[in-house]
Amino acid sequence: MKRLYYGYAAFIDDVKALADSLKNEKFDCLIAVSRGGLTFAHFLASALNMRSIALIRAVSYDDRQKLAAPKIATAPDLNGAKKALIIDEIVDSGETLQAVLRALQKSSPKTAFKSVALFQKPSASIRADFFAKESADWIDFFWEVDPRI
Amino acid sequence: MKRLYYGYAAFIDDVKALADSLKNEKFDCLIAVSRGGLTFAHFLASALNMRSIALIRAVSYDDRQKLAAPKIATAPDLNGAKKALIIDEIVDSGETLQAVLRALQKSSPKTAFKSVALFQKPSASIRADFFAKESADWIDFFWEVDPRI
Repeated sequence: MKRLYYGYAAFIDDVKALADSLKNEKFDCLIAVSRGGLTFAHFLASALNMRSIALIRAVSYDDRQKLAAPKIATAPDLNGAKKALIIDEIVDSGETLQAVLRALQKSSPKTAFKSVALFQKPSASIRADFFAKESADWIDFFWEVDPRI
Repeated sequence: MKRLYYGYAAFIDDVKALADSLKNEKFDCLIAVSRGGLTFAHFLASALNMRSIALIRAVSYDDRQKLAAPKIATAPDLNGAKKALIIDEIVDSGETLQAVLRALQKSSPKTAFKSVALFQKPSASIRADFFAKESADWIDFFWEVDPRI
């Protein structure tokens, strides 16, 4: 698989463009998919001037080894949010987003969910409602590469 | 108050230096103080190769207006962590870190807590166990400035 380094400058451009598309959607809660969606969620929250951020943990890769099925930890309490945005860095197979959606719809059945990702793989089983780029490459995100010690 | 822009390149240097100091501490859980600590927590987790990240929400500033006391939402379940690291971007007055510590020590009395911040203000009522820089300036963090639309 081709590898693409995704750096900070490209990320800022994508965050601004996505925030511009999202600003009129009136979300009352942002949900960061941990770990990969944390930085993206922080920057979107900053651009959208929002402070209500929840975290959901999904583990689908153990380093680069794909697990059989994504594991979802306990779904967060969304405090009666009407419309929440699920934020992840990539929709890869789509299994993580589907598992996150299932867990959240079960725990917060009255909340409407939309999703945003930086990258969407064309082969994924589900598409994010909003995404910046479509790519079949393996993406090396700057938050994985740059802080290596 | 003097304003200092804190950019991505300086951040990477600080994350690497702090991760190097933290790598032998054997934390089994990282706790990001939301919103300000999210990106820093993501990068530290990446550098330390950790995936167990919890979130605690503390609101001490409403834009640039300081609230009378930091408000802490529900403390997260740390799943019996023995040693957890509280991660925030700055120890300013110290009130947020103290409130976060109080809430976590109450909800997880058997967990040992340490704290890390990028910036420590000399006038703060408490000091982080680890920090990168001491400064009395107002810090404009890149995650607040760069994604503005």
